[in-house]
Amino acid sequence: MDYRLEQDLLGDKNIEVSSYSGINTARALENFDLGGKTVNLHLIKEIALIKKAAAMTNKKLKFLQEDKADAIIKASEEVIDGKFDNEFKVSAFQGGAGTSTNMNVNEVIANRAIELLGGAKGEYDLVHPLNHVNMSQSTNDVYPSALRIAAIRLIRKLSTSLSSLQEALQIKENDFADIIKLGRTQLMDALPMTAGQGFGAYAKAIERDRWRIYKVEERLRQINLGGTAIGTGLNATNRYVFMMTDIIQDLTGLGIARSDYPMDITQNCDIFVETSGLLKSCSVNLLKISNDLRLLNSGPRGGFGEIILPKMQAGSTIMPGKVNPVIPEMVAQVSLRVISNDTAITMASSMGQLELNAFVPLIAECLLESLELLDRSVVLFKEKCIDDLLMDKDRCLENLENSLVSATALVPYIGYDKASLVSKKALSSGKTIREILLEEQILPIETIDKILSPNELIRTHISGK
Amino acid sequence: MDYRLEQDLLGDKNIEVSSYSGINTARALENFDLGGKTVNLHLIKEIALIKKAAAMTNKKLKFLQEDKADAIIKASEEVIDGKFDNEFKVSAFQGGAGTSTNMNVNEVIANRAIELLGGAKGEYDLVHPLNHVNMSQSTNDVYPSALRIAAIRLIRKLSTSLSSLQEALQIKENDFADIIKLGRTQLMDALPMTAGQGFGAYAKAIERDRWRIYKVEERLRQINLGGTAIGTGLNATNRYVFMMTDIIQDLTGLGIARSDYPMDITQNCDIFVETSGLLKSCSVNLLKISNDLRLLNSGPRGGFGEIILPKMQAGSTIMPGKVNPVIPEMVAQVSLRVISNDTAITMASSMGQLELNAFVPLIAECLLESLELLDRSVVLFKEKCIDDLLMDKDRCLENLENSLVSATALVPYIGYDKASLVSKKALSSGKTIREILLEEQILPIETIDKILSPNELIRTHISGK
Amino acid sequence: MDYRLEQDLLGDKNIEVSSYSGINTARALENFDLGGKTVNLHLIKEIALIKKAAAMTNKKLKFLQEDKADAIIKASEEVIDGKFDNEFKVSAFQGGAGTSTNMNVNEVIANRAIELLGGAKGEYDLVHPLNHVNMSQSTNDVYPSALRIAAIRLIRKLSTSLSSLQEALQIKENDFADIIKLGRTQLMDALPMTAGQGFGAYAKAIERDRWRIYKVEERLRQINLGGTAIGTGLNATNRYVFMMTDIIQDLTGLGIARSDYPMDITQNCDIFVETSGLLKSCSVNLLKISNDLRLLNSGPRGGFGEIILPKMQAGSTIMPGKVNPVIPEMVAQVSLRVISNDTAITMASSMGQLELNAFVPLIAECLLESLELLDRSVVLFKEKCIDDLLMDKDRCLENLENSLVSATALVPYIGYDKASLVSKKALSSGKTIREILLEEQILPIETIDKILSPNELIRTHISGK
Amino acid sequence: MDYRLEQDLLGDKNIEVSSYSGINTARALENFDLGGKTVNLHLIKEIALIKKAAAMTNKKLKFLQEDKADAIIKASEEVIDGKFDNEFKVSAFQGGAGTSTNMNVNEVIANRAIELLGGAKGEYDLVHPLNHVNMSQSTNDVYPSALRIAAIRLIRKLSTSLSSLQEALQIKENDFADIIKLGRTQLMDALPMTAGQGFGAYAKAIERDRWRIYKVEERLRQINLGGTAIGTGLNATNRYVFMMTDIIQDLTGLGIARSDYPMDITQNCDIFVETSGLLKSCSVNLLKISNDLRLLNSGPRGGFGEIILPKMQAGSTIMPGKVNPVIPEMVAQVSLRVISNDTAITMASSMGQLELNAFVPLIAECLLESLELLDRSVVLFKEKCIDDLLMDKDRCLENLENSLVSATALVPYIGYDKASLVSKKALSSGKTIREILLEEQILPIETIDKILSPNELIRTHISGK
Repeated sequence: MDYRLEQDLLGDKNIEVSSYSGINTARALENFDLGGKTVNLHLIKEIALIKKAAAMTNKKLKFLQEDKADAIIKASEEVIDGKFDNEFKVSAFQGGAGTSTNMNVNEVIANRAIELLGGAKGEYDLVHPLNHVNMSQSTNDVYPSALRIAAIRLIRKLSTSLSSLQEALQIKENDFADIIKLGRTQLMDALPMTAGQGFGAYAKAIERDRWRIYKVEERLRQINLGGTAIGTGLNATNRYVFMMTDIIQDLTGLGIARSDYPMDITQNCDIFVETSGLLKSCSVNLLKISNDLRLLNSGPRGGFGEIILPKMQAGSTIMPGKVNPVIPEMVAQVSLRVISNDTAITMASSMGQLELNAFVPLIAECLLESLELLDRSVVLFKEKCIDDLLMDKDRCLENLENSLVSATALVPYIGYDKASLVSKKALSSGKTIREILLEEQILPIETIDKILSPNELIRTHISGK
Repeated sequence: MDYRLEQDLLGDKNIEVSSYSGINTARALENFDLGGKTVNLHLIKEIALIKKAAAMTNKKLKFLQEDKADAIIKASEEVIDGKFDNEFKVSAFQGGAGTSTNMNVNEVIANRAIELLGGAKGEYDLVHPLNHVNMSQSTNDVYPSALRIAAIRLIRKLSTSLSSLQEALQIKENDFADIIKLGRTQLMDALPMTAGQGFGAYAKAIERDRWRIYKVEERLRQINLGGTAIGTGLNATNRYVFMMTDIIQDLTGLGIARSDYPMDITQNCDIFVETSGLLKSCSVNLLKISNDLRLLNSGPRGGFGEIILPKMQAGSTIMPGKVNPVIPEMVAQVSLRVISNDTAITMASSMGQLELNAFVPLIAECLLESLELLDRSVVLFKEKCIDDLLMDKDRCLENLENSLVSATALVPYIGYDKASLVSKKALSSGKTIREILLEEQILPIETIDKILSPNELIRTHISGK
Repeated sequence: MDYRLEQDLLGDKNIEVSSYSGINTARALENFDLGGKTVNLHLIKEIALIKKAAAMTNKKLKFLQEDKADAIIKASEEVIDGKFDNEFKVSAFQGGAGTSTNMNVNEVIANRAIELLGGAKGEYDLVHPLNHVNMSQSTNDVYPSALRIAAIRLIRKLSTSLSSLQEALQIKENDFADIIKLGRTQLMDALPMTAGQGFGAYAKAIERDRWRIYKVEERLRQINLGGTAIGTGLNATNRYVFMMTDIIQDLTGLGIARSDYPMDITQNCDIFVETSGLLKSCSVNLLKISNDLRLLNSGPRGGFGEIILPKMQAGSTIMPGKVNPVIPEMVAQVSLRVISNDTAITMASSMGQLELNAFVPLIAECLLESLELLDRSVVLFKEKCIDDLLMDKDRCLENLENSLVSATALVPYIGYDKASLVSKKALSSGKTIREILLEEQILPIETIDKILSPNELIRTHISGK
Repeated sequence: MDYRLEQDLLGDKNIEVSSYSGINTARALENFDLGGKTVNLHLIKEIALIKKAAAMTNKKLKFLQEDKADAIIKASEEVIDGKFDNEFKVSAFQGGAGTSTNMNVNEVIANRAIELLGGAKGEYDLVHPLNHVNMSQSTNDVYPSALRIAAIRLIRKLSTSLSSLQEALQIKENDFADIIKLGRTQLMDALPMTAGQGFGAYAKAIERDRWRIYKVEERLRQINLGGTAIGTGLNATNRYVFMMTDIIQDLTGLGIARSDYPMDITQNCDIFVETSGLLKSCSVNLLKISNDLRLLNSGPRGGFGEIILPKMQAGSTIMPGKVNPVIPEMVAQVSLRVISNDTAITMASSMGQLELNAFVPLIAECLLESLELLDRSVVLFKEKCIDDLLMDKDRCLENLENSLVSATALVPYIGYDKASLVSKKALSSGKTIREILLEEQILPIETIDKILSPNELIRTHISGK
């Protein structure tokens, strides 16, 4: 293989001639040789977008020669378009607070820009990764800004997916409005309800999730570009800061705003904890719903059997004919992953020290994974589970009619203690509430029938009145 | 001891004559005989407030006789005033989704009301814990509603405490505006800054916390009273629902609103996960700040030594004269407790099933503890640590002047690579950046002095221009 | 009130004359005025035991006068006996790495010893909290040693409780050995099994928990007494170290050993993380079992209904006759608490710095709470739930017979694909596997009957061979 | 593209002719279309090893024709050798309790075996994925067994890496045995110690980690092969169970044992919680050590500056000459990832229901990732950080000599209170302890010199005696 020689603070190093990455990337690949996850490409591309914006700004401000700037802009666009995806192989768990990732992008863009200007990779006099591509920037303002932009884009996607899920649940609320079934508290037979009401409760929870996730964008919009290394802004200028904000708004179409206190953004990661906390709230709701669906789908013969989930695949390598609730199981696991990512984000954020949090690479990896997984899993949940699920109306009715839950409706008539006795007798004798009431002549039959009519038992009133 | 005999579904039981609690409480004490934490009294008192409101409502609606209602109202007020605090001894980790707590309150109020009506405790014909005190209610609507009211009150308290902390930090931002010190990233010498800027960054983080916590009240305001057991509202009436909301608004002075979908509130606990998640975000900021203060206070001679925390107590049983940063250490531990409570709240909330979450007692215990501890610890942090902390100006200057951080300001003049070499030489030779620049005749002395002036290095511009 | 004046590094302070605690305790009460949990008394008492041992040792070594030593020994015994429990009111979340707790014990013992010697509280020339009671000690060796001893005692208690639970489960394994029921995977009907087998699987899990928890004692036994402040042993002597170990072995009856590297014990908390991690494993098993019991008990009519849990209390304030699985619900919540305590212990332990972990008070509070709660909840689980639970044999059989799970036994005869078709037909037609086999003449009736006999389907072999 | 038609329970599906995977894999790819992580290849290969063992066993038992068996064995070996790595693309977060992964392996092996027998992919009469490749097996016994084997292999690797790290730390303990430095508790100057002692304490912690992780293998060795779907063993035989265990011992060289209670292994995941808990303990120690190194390395001029970490890469895109502690930062992030994986493993394990845990895919992904990352990060920590780190002896001495920590050694001579005053005076006046003692004529100069000699202050005795 052919090599070019590159240099840094620590000395020389051979770099493959074909490589767009340079010496800093090469050292990072060795230092963080963990295998496994590499840096999320969404983050890489937003960093490239910032590089493009900085080149545009520095060109306007005459800090950067026009031809160099144009080459950097073009090269950045190619990174954004994914032409160099395979140049970004540094571990997601790298040390250095993201410097290696920023360096990696700087080097790829510089070398590509050099090529565009007719030079050979490594001729950094033409375009220098730091003096030119990174001009007016620091990893410590580029990285959190890119992460915020990446997060906002994924949040919008997730927000849309949650809307669709909410809508799908509301369609079920409507479709099942007339199916009366047993409501259960603490898994015990409780009171009658409609199947639709249950889906309505799910829809409300998802509606809150969507709203929360949508609203957190407001706090993610503030970026610290121009704050440079610690937020004081050394080596940037005020004109750069204002111009960058405008250009990034243009390039992204997002309501990005410059922070009025960049030193805050550089060191504090609470906004990622907040965002992840909201994804966790959403995961809690998804766990609840997916667990409920699995429970109500249990059987087909020896469980609750009230819901029939769409069949997605053969369920067993040994039990022929078995079909499992694989989509809710996947949703549950993604939810657990999001919750566990929140642990990492919380701990990493709490470990920030003084003017920087050194652990943003972990925060970025976990937050972006959570956003991507949650979005996909919500889409699949809707399409492959909710949309086509059915109620087993007969089973619902059978379960309700076998139960003794109508006893509650008697309380306003005969008091709690007497109603308890009726219920107890029914349970031990295997009879219905109605039978006991009649046998013991507790209430006249017309009253009983009025009180116990299922449709009377599912709304806010005293049944039979 | 004298006993009265009480009865329930399971049979008879002797209850001490002096006890305001009855058979349901007695069984709960036996069943959940765990030792340790009992139910949070804030919750008990909000349940009593709901009992009072229900008696007022049911009296107006003529469901409840006037004298019974008045006795219940009076007895509820006494519970709220703390006269019966020692009657509430059931474990915070009770099973039963809070039924034992609701029963406990029902029984205490009923027996006290019976007394007020001239009867003897246990004469439940006079005032019945369920038929009268619990009229139109279920644990499943009373309990989450009380928890939300308790949470809102504590949130307001915490919000105020956070405002005071933010203000105290801003006073330091102002006081220390002229103290120049070393900024550090990844614990390594980075760039100059002012001590005030550091406190400003803390203040911004706490400001966000206050705002978030203040805003979550909006979503906590919705209560499901009238939803009864599963949210369908059986045994309550619409007039009851509306009247209850009005009365509770009056009694609490809070913007409580009835939920338009009580079944949602009854079963979904995501709002508690959201709230706890925000307390967790706040804890992350408190951990960051308290860790920074401990670090900058380290020494007094062999550490950073830039901050001097107020001395609060002797620090060691063996090392005379040692003083420790006990307040930040306390704040850190409370923060960790809040984060760990969030784990419990998240898991418990995710384990809700169908029409109820059986684990609200754990959620309530953890959420209310987090709110109370956080509030107290924020108050103590401000008063016993932030208000009186000082900067060691000389040490700040000494640390800065010894450092090589001004090298960054050279980049716009001599480029990154050359500036690196200067810095490297300074470090290995033990000289200053200025000395190397002069020795090697890299820049004229006037330029050097203009670039390296400390006051030039702490704001957004190209130093020396 | 009458006061005595006490002094410390920071100045004077009035202390109530009747108080056995002194100025250090008084400052701690003010500094950590958080409300809520105070220091666990198990820890206080093991600290007092160490004080007693140190007085015995220092008396033998002639470091401490006989009369002072005897008074300290007597006073320590009184603290151990609980006579001064109400003197220990400092917050469990105190800063200072436990110094306030150690000081509190020193002061109470000193003042009580002074009294025993005929002096008045506060006359510290007679017995000084630090010079005499704390002689040869530091909080940093006393505190972790006391915590380890307290943990070992509670671990032994828990280990015994787990044994009893295991035994109770094995009794059920035996009792239910002949009850055939439906086994379920992913909540779907899977294969036949006996009810006894299910309980056997629970017993195996608990057996592992007991074994693990029993074995971790080995690593908790090492204490660092004599290491003093940072583990180097300054102000202690080797004779003291050896004598202390012997005396503490005698006093506790435990196999306590001195660490060969006290500096390790002083700063590293991984043993508490390990112990808490094992309690977490146990909690995971308890969650699994308690959730299973709740599921199999669900109904009584509209759920699985295969298990009948003992009735412990009335279940609802609105639904007469409802009985809930309150004991498993309590067990689940305690399990979640233990898991959340593990979060605090993990984070606090990871935050140790250099020669000490400042956050041991939180670690102690969480670890001892977990041990106590888990022990009590295991005892209650056994006594109030497992011992008296029953199987509903008829329901078990009904659920099994309705199911199609015998299809699996056909695979060795007709292959997976054909068996799938049989199963699918049975499900859609509402018929049994047997009926389809006969209708379609897939196998001769004698073979079918041999293969599908329930007792053939619950063991390791090819059914029917 | 060319397709072959395959069939399952749900109908037909076109499969690319070149694909070794079949219809079940195709459905899984659609159903779990989450992007991101695919199933860990270590797991895939251990499943293939089990397939090989099963074919060997079933051949011996004459359940499987010799030619089919041989083809399956050969195909399995090719999977183990990594020839089909790109056929395993199903998401790591798949639903179905691992069935899709087992099916994927079955299909790839079947189609490859068919090829080896001269057939065309999809001709399942020749070799059927279920009837032949999966013979006598169920996902529910194959999957946990493969996971245990994969975990054991990685545990052994990690155990070796930890030994090397321990050894490297002990070399430092030895190398730095004569460097006296300041010991610190709660970040405050405490007592003198040697730099070697500090590394000795780290080595002890890592020694415990290695031992724990090594010992947990014992409990991972038990596998449930032959338990089939729920642990009862239907469709397997006892001869199969015994023969499989022997063959797997041979193939792996590990002390694998059959469980005496397969139903336990099928449903209980506590062993993974235990293992992950131990990895968490190890992570806590790694966090502690890496944080300490970062702290002691802080500077180079404005921090503690006592340790000099090897320089691994340029540290900043804006600050020339800055070098950061990137390896400890990486180790910290991997540690946080392991801790967060433990959250997922704990929750997933607690969610097992009845005869199976549906969430083993998540457990497997998290456990294997933790093991791999931890192993790599321990290796890199040793090689790129510990091996070449140095102490700055002069800085150590300077920090110590500036400090007042020798005051503790005075306590046995002048008592705690007087020693406190000396210390306080020294601090406020900027003098040394020695100077104050002399000025105030508290002790004769010879005694002072004997007591305060640094070498006297670092071991177990009364200094100066």
